[in-house]
Amino acid sequence: MEQTDIKKVRLEEKFDLFADRWNPKIVGEINDSYVKLVKLKGEFVWHHHEAEDELFLVVKGSLLIKLRDRDIRLEEGEFVIIPRGVEHLPVADEEAHVLLLEPKTTLNTGEVQNERTVAVLERI
Amino acid sequence: MEQTDIKKVRLEEKFDLFADRWNPKIVGEINDSYVKLVKLKGEFVWHHHEAEDELFLVVKGSLLIKLRDRDIRLEEGEFVIIPRGVEHLPVADEEAHVLLLEPKTTLNTGEVQNERTVAVLERI
Repeated sequence: MEQTDIKKVRLEEKFDLFADRWNPKIVGEINDSYVKLVKLKGEFVWHHHEAEDELFLVVKGSLLIKLRDRDIRLEEGEFVIIPRGVEHLPVADEEAHVLLLEPKTTLNTGEVQNERTVAVLERI
Repeated sequence: MEQTDIKKVRLEEKFDLFADRWNPKIVGEINDSYVKLVKLKGEFVWHHHEAEDELFLVVKGSLLIKLRDRDIRLEEGEFVIIPRGVEHLPVADEEAHVLLLEPKTTLNTGEVQNERTVAVLERI
């Protein structure tokens, strides 16, 4: 990569570029992973990722991550790493702005493929 | 990993746990990478990482990343990914709190080994 391609990313500015929910955008590429931003509101689908750990960092709002045995509530400035194989269900009562970090191979709905699946992600 | 091992991380709380600078602490493990927190003040050493991209996210304060051809100033809520092979020099006039993401194999001083090198990182 040319040094001139190195650009900083201002999270707030990137979140201002889109309004759609549950549709992660790529904002960075690091080793074998993408940094993604997503706006969430409502309930997603239960899923897991067979071979990939996934990081959720709340940038704005509040996010509930349901696990099968308990819930984890994330507020602004908090993150959690959901290890591979662990079923989870993200839920946001109000719109939450979330930074995701996960391998390039990760599909948002994990092992589930349905109308919530976004196979090709936009870069912003 | 057992589901009971999944713990959220509150960044502010973790930064309160240490005061030493230039000594990254591991706060998360994700795939082949660590999430680390570090407090920086002053100037580091010019270095690069041969095979590893490195992410710097400023959580508090301001961080200057000098490249050989220009400078990138990061404020709170901004990140940059320094691609493998690119020489960089982090500089902080005032103490900055920074989240790092990099492969487990990454040494803080890259190809340089000197008194600033921290080979074994603490987990907090």
